[in-house]
Amino acid sequence: MANESSLDALFGAMADPTRRAVVARLVEGPAAVKELHAPHDIALPTFLRHLKVLEASGLVRSEKAGRVRVVHLEAAALSAAEGWLRDQRRMWERRLDRLEAVVAELSERTDDGG
Amino acid sequence: MANESSLDALFGAMADPTRRAVVARLVEGPAAVKELHAPHDIALPTFLRHLKVLEASGLVRSEKAGRVRVVHLEAAALSAAEGWLRDQRRMWERRLDRLEAVVAELSERTDDGG
Repeated sequence: MANESSLDALFGAMADPTRRAVVARLVEGPAAVKELHAPHDIALPTFLRHLKVLEASGLVRSEKAGRVRVVHLEAAALSAAEGWLRDQRRMWERRLDRLEAVVAELSERTDDGG
Repeated sequence: MANESSLDALFGAMADPTRRAVVARLVEGPAAVKELHAPHDIALPTFLRHLKVLEASGLVRSEKAGRVRVVHLEAAALSAAEGWLRDQRRMWERRLDRLEAVVAELSERTDDGG
């Protein structure tokens, strides 16, 4: 289970369209920094700052392969963020189930009385 | 499907432990601002700023009920954020499936040749 500060970093990392686009590209497989940067109309230093935010959050890692830096997705970090959201949704669904049960019981009683 | 700027706001809203705690509380049901603030050891104005960020992202809405402001979760917004993450995970899983298929084929060929 991800702790609070790692969830801060994960959700913060995903709160930007360039960084989400990088994640969406990396689910297809690792890529060199140059290739990741190519579709984005922003200066390389700005793009590298986005990569740093992603690395600091644990969503990606990078390593030198010869003269090229290759970036990989860390799928476990993606799962941690998804897990938090899924937990909230499940609690919400349980609440709806309970409300439905109450409504069903109330309407049964109303039928008995009517 | 959530657009890019709404995903920015959603993930940004969740990148804070106080705001996540409010969401986690609201999945249990609506609550008054005073009740939401009680467990948090921060000044009310600071807490109200967190609520504003949550409202601006679409994750919660609030309405006056007499003299009390009641806050509700917008489950659809939560689902939009979860949906984006789920899409990434599914793409990732498809990639793993393809890799596994390739590995299986290669090791079959190796067996034939051996």
